[in-house]
Amino acid sequence: MTYCTGLLLDEGMVFASDSRTNAGLDNIATFCKMTVFERAGDRVIVLLSSGNLAGTQAVISVLRQRGDAEGASPNLWNARTLFDVTALVADAMRDIDRRDGLYLAESGGFNASFILGGQIRGEPMRLFRIYSEGNFIEAGLHTTPYFQTGEAKYGKSIIDRVITPSTTLADAAKCVLVSFDSTMRSNLSVGMPIDLICYRRDSLAIQMRRRFDEGDAYFTALSSQWSEGVRDVFSRLPELHW
Amino acid sequence: MTYCTGLLLDEGMVFASDSRTNAGLDNIATFCKMTVFERAGDRVIVLLSSGNLAGTQAVISVLRQRGDAEGASPNLWNARTLFDVTALVADAMRDIDRRDGLYLAESGGFNASFILGGQIRGEPMRLFRIYSEGNFIEAGLHTTPYFQTGEAKYGKSIIDRVITPSTTLADAAKCVLVSFDSTMRSNLSVGMPIDLICYRRDSLAIQMRRRFDEGDAYFTALSSQWSEGVRDVFSRLPELHW
Repeated sequence: MTYCTGLLLDEGMVFASDSRTNAGLDNIATFCKMTVFERAGDRVIVLLSSGNLAGTQAVISVLRQRGDAEGASPNLWNARTLFDVTALVADAMRDIDRRDGLYLAESGGFNASFILGGQIRGEPMRLFRIYSEGNFIEAGLHTTPYFQTGEAKYGKSIIDRVITPSTTLADAAKCVLVSFDSTMRSNLSVGMPIDLICYRRDSLAIQMRRRFDEGDAYFTALSSQWSEGVRDVFSRLPELHW
Repeated sequence: MTYCTGLLLDEGMVFASDSRTNAGLDNIATFCKMTVFERAGDRVIVLLSSGNLAGTQAVISVLRQRGDAEGASPNLWNARTLFDVTALVADAMRDIDRRDGLYLAESGGFNASFILGGQIRGEPMRLFRIYSEGNFIEAGLHTTPYFQTGEAKYGKSIIDRVITPSTTLADAAKCVLVSFDSTMRSNLSVGMPIDLICYRRDSLAIQMRRRFDEGDAYFTALSSQWSEGVRDVFSRLPELHW
């Protein structure tokens, strides 16, 4: 399984993904589920993958190859808007599905989905969620400013409690890490390392990227302070009288 | 959907259930999902229902009728152990399934499941989870001291963080209410009123039972103090340096 989340805030965007991949319970591996396409000053595109690894890797390889190809065919680097980029990802997903879908029919078919976000010069920041069928939705800053994929429920309540459009990038990054901590405590199919990016609005470059490995000092401190703090709040809640 | 949870602690047991029932999104109703069979000094049996309401109500009616019947046929009131009571519930479920299952096949079949717990004189407290097939598992005080059914994930992390066998009944009740608060914030299919029971070990009687309706003063205070407290803990978490 997987846990990925992307947030759209006034100050910028936050992206995070776990790294646990498994085909059955006895075949666990670590793969990065975060892919960045960046041309400083022009565009930052972050893609978070969930679903079957063969499918998500194939989609990303196709996107890379098409981006590297000579000529002016539409690709990630010449797309004018992030909407167009999202449609290119959907096209790649459907191409892979056409190639592999029939062979996967018995095991559930092509299943890959993405959170895609970032900014292209001349546009505001945008955040999309692409379903495995290739259709997609876009987040609204003042309606639902985040998307989650995978094991989303365990870590949803802290996001719902803390995040508003005016949350700072620093607080949002902490919130996302706490959300991962809660998820990993309750579900073994989500695991470290965690990849985290904070993107500052209009910077058109990735300036804050960090990987949190098992035992990371900051994450461990965050996790234990959070636990202690929560238990402390808990102990001060009013008593119930029967 | 539903959210129910039952906890087994050194000091006693906690049971809680929501009340939202829906057949489709436009047919929402309120039904109590908590049933108590109590003979003070002899036995306390609490049943939390989830799944199709027609199924769970039928099971409970059958259990009641069999309990009220003359004669010495095995029933809830003469069962010697809570294991035997759990088997009687499973029998009732299978009887209903035999009667209705065929007619429900196209709409997913008989689906009802239960958390059952309590104490019978001469036995320790026990907690079971009964699956819709009628098979069941028992909680262990020092292994997994709680069961959840329905929309369990949103409210799991606070239980995982707070509950140990030595948690007091008072704290466990608060924890369960916070768990419901988190679930209801993130999922519309779980709704008030919440029914709550705290059972004190060896009391063989229900002395603490409470229903929390929409707008309940205690629940509202708990919910807002929790939110503020969590945001406060949050604001004091260490800053991430990139």
